[in-house]
Amino acid sequence: MDFKAPYLLFLGCEDSPLAIKMSRGLAQWRPEVCIGEIADPSCDLTLGLKQLSIDAAVASGAQSFILGLANSGGIISQDWLPYILEALEKGLDVVSGLHNKLSDIPEIQAAAEKFGRKLYDVRHFDGELRVGNGRKRSGKRLLTVGTDCSVGKMYASLAIEKEMIKKGYDVDFRATGQTGLMVAGSGICIDAVVADFISGAVEMISPDNTKSHWDIIEGQGSLQNPSFAGVSTGLLHGAQPDVIVMCHEAGRETIKGLPDFKVPSLRQAIEANLQVASLTNPKVKLAGIALNCRTIGKEKGMAEMARLEQEFSVPCFDPIITGAASLMDNL
Amino acid sequence: MDFKAPYLLFLGCEDSPLAIKMSRGLAQWRPEVCIGEIADPSCDLTLGLKQLSIDAAVASGAQSFILGLANSGGIISQDWLPYILEALEKGLDVVSGLHNKLSDIPEIQAAAEKFGRKLYDVRHFDGELRVGNGRKRSGKRLLTVGTDCSVGKMYASLAIEKEMIKKGYDVDFRATGQTGLMVAGSGICIDAVVADFISGAVEMISPDNTKSHWDIIEGQGSLQNPSFAGVSTGLLHGAQPDVIVMCHEAGRETIKGLPDFKVPSLRQAIEANLQVASLTNPKVKLAGIALNCRTIGKEKGMAEMARLEQEFSVPCFDPIITGAASLMDNL
Repeated sequence: MDFKAPYLLFLGCEDSPLAIKMSRGLAQWRPEVCIGEIADPSCDLTLGLKQLSIDAAVASGAQSFILGLANSGGIISQDWLPYILEALEKGLDVVSGLHNKLSDIPEIQAAAEKFGRKLYDVRHFDGELRVGNGRKRSGKRLLTVGTDCSVGKMYASLAIEKEMIKKGYDVDFRATGQTGLMVAGSGICIDAVVADFISGAVEMISPDNTKSHWDIIEGQGSLQNPSFAGVSTGLLHGAQPDVIVMCHEAGRETIKGLPDFKVPSLRQAIEANLQVASLTNPKVKLAGIALNCRTIGKEKGMAEMARLEQEFSVPCFDPIITGAASLMDNL
Repeated sequence: MDFKAPYLLFLGCEDSPLAIKMSRGLAQWRPEVCIGEIADPSCDLTLGLKQLSIDAAVASGAQSFILGLANSGGIISQDWLPYILEALEKGLDVVSGLHNKLSDIPEIQAAAEKFGRKLYDVRHFDGELRVGNGRKRSGKRLLTVGTDCSVGKMYASLAIEKEMIKKGYDVDFRATGQTGLMVAGSGICIDAVVADFISGAVEMISPDNTKSHWDIIEGQGSLQNPSFAGVSTGLLHGAQPDVIVMCHEAGRETIKGLPDFKVPSLRQAIEANLQVASLTNPKVKLAGIALNCRTIGKEKGMAEMARLEQEFSVPCFDPIITGAASLMDNL
C-alpha cells in the first residue's frame, strides 16, 4: 500500500458516528495529512475538518479520496457512486476500507482506467500469506488486547506509539484493522485473512528487528467474544508479545451486539490473555490498562483509573484524556 | 457438493504416507465407493485398493477422480497434470482437497470445458457466511478436540458416528476439514474461511435440531498449536459442545512441524479446552479420550488406554483398534 497524501475524507450519507469511525481515526491520528472532509447533504456528521468540494480539495493539493466508512455488510453504497466517480474524474485516487472491492464495481473500475487513477482496498491483502511458526523473533513487541471489540485498542496503540516517539524509542505501529491500515499506510486486516493464516499474518507484519526496537501491534476482538475470539487467539500467538496492554471501555457490561454475553472482568480477561500469549512467549507480562472513559467522562474516569492502578499495580491511562505517558516507565 | 461416486483415488507422486491421508480416510470410512487407486510410477504408496489405470477405472464405472493429496502449500503439482487431464478426457469429474483451485489452472479449466466435466474444490465454500452469535441451539453436540493437528480427530469422530448409528442414535457427522468433507459429502473447511467467520461457519454446519439429535463435529488443530489455535478456538465457540472428546497420538512429544513446541499434557489440553468451550456452553464436559495408538501398537496401547481411563475417569478408546463402543455409556 502506498496511497498518496494528502487526503479528502468522504463521510457519505451516514447518520451514525460509528459509521464514520475509520475517518475519525484518521483525522485524529494523522491530522497533518487530512486536508478536508466532504459529505452528502443528507449527512449531518462532521470531523471538524475544513469542508471542501472535490474541486476545492484538488485545488488544495489532495491526492486521495478516502472512503473511511463502515456498514454491516461492508457494502459500497450506490449513493456514494457520484462522489467516487467525480473524485476519479477530477484526479484523485480512491482508498476504501469496506469489505466489497472498489474494482468489483464496473463503473468505478471503468472510471479509474479512463482517468488513470488507482483504487486501493485496504481490507484485502494481495500478497502471499504463510502459516505461523511461533519462532522467537528479535526485537520487542507490545500487543493491545481487550475485554471486547471496539473498546479502543487502536487508539491505545496509537497513543502508546505517539508517546514512545516523543521519548525517543525506535517504534512502529503495526496495523491489523482497516482504520489502522489507513493511519499506518501498511499492515494486514487480520480478520479478513483465511483462518489458517491468522498467526502467520501477524508474524509477517512484525518481523525480526533490532534488539531495542518496539512493534506496537493493534489487537482485534476479545478472547471472550464468541464471534471473534479465534482472531484474537491467532493474534496473541503471532504477536508473541513481551507485554500486553488490556483495553476496556468503562461502563460496558455486555458484549457488543450480543446482550446475552457479559463482558469479562478485567482480571478474567488479563489472566486469559496472559495464558494464551504464554504459548509463544512464556515471559509475557501485563504492562498496563487502557481505560476508554468515553461514557463516564473525565472526572469519574480519573477516579476509576486510580482505582485500577491500585488493584492491578500497573499504569492505567485513557488514550484521549491522559495519553500513554504513564505507561512509559513500565516498558 | 454433489460429486458422483464411485471414485478413483489418485496418490500422485508422493512418498510420505501423510501426503495421502485424505485418500486413506476416504478408503477407510467409505470403502464401498472407492473403486480403485492410481499412482505415478515414482510413488510406492498404496491404500490396498485395486490398482487401476484411468481407462480400467472408467470401464469399471468410476465417476470421479479424487485428488486426496496434501502438501504444505496446498499446491496442485505440475507432475499431476497429465493424470488430471487424462481423467477429464476419459470422462471423470475431478475432486480436489488442495488449497489451490483446479479452475485457476488454465489447462485444467480448458479440459473440463472441452470434455464437459465438473471440477470440485472442497476446501472452498461458495455460499454466504455469517459472523457467529453464540446463541444456544437445540439438539446435542459432541466436538473432538486434540493435543495437536493430525492426531486422529476425524477418525475419532467417524468411529463415534459409526457406533452411535449402530446403537440407534439420531446422529450426523459434521465435517470441518477436506477429508471429512469428502467422506461426508457436505460441511465447510473451517481453516479455509475468512477469519471473521470461523465460529459462524461452525454454527451454520450444526444448526438447531431435535432435542435428542447429536451432531458429531470434527475438530481441527489444537489450542496449543501456535499455527492453528485461532481456528480451534473459533471451532470450540461455534460448536458450543455439550461434550468434548480429547484426541491424542500416543508417543507424540512435539507439535507437528514445530519441534520447539511440546505437545501439552492431556490434563493441560483438557482443562484449556473446557475453559474455552465454557464461553458458549458453561455445562460442557469431557466425555472421553481417543488415543491414536498407531506408533505404540495394540498391546502397549491397551495398557495405556487402561491407565488413562483410571487417571481421567472417562472411557478411552482407539478409533481403529477398539472402536468407540466404550464411549456410548458416557453420552
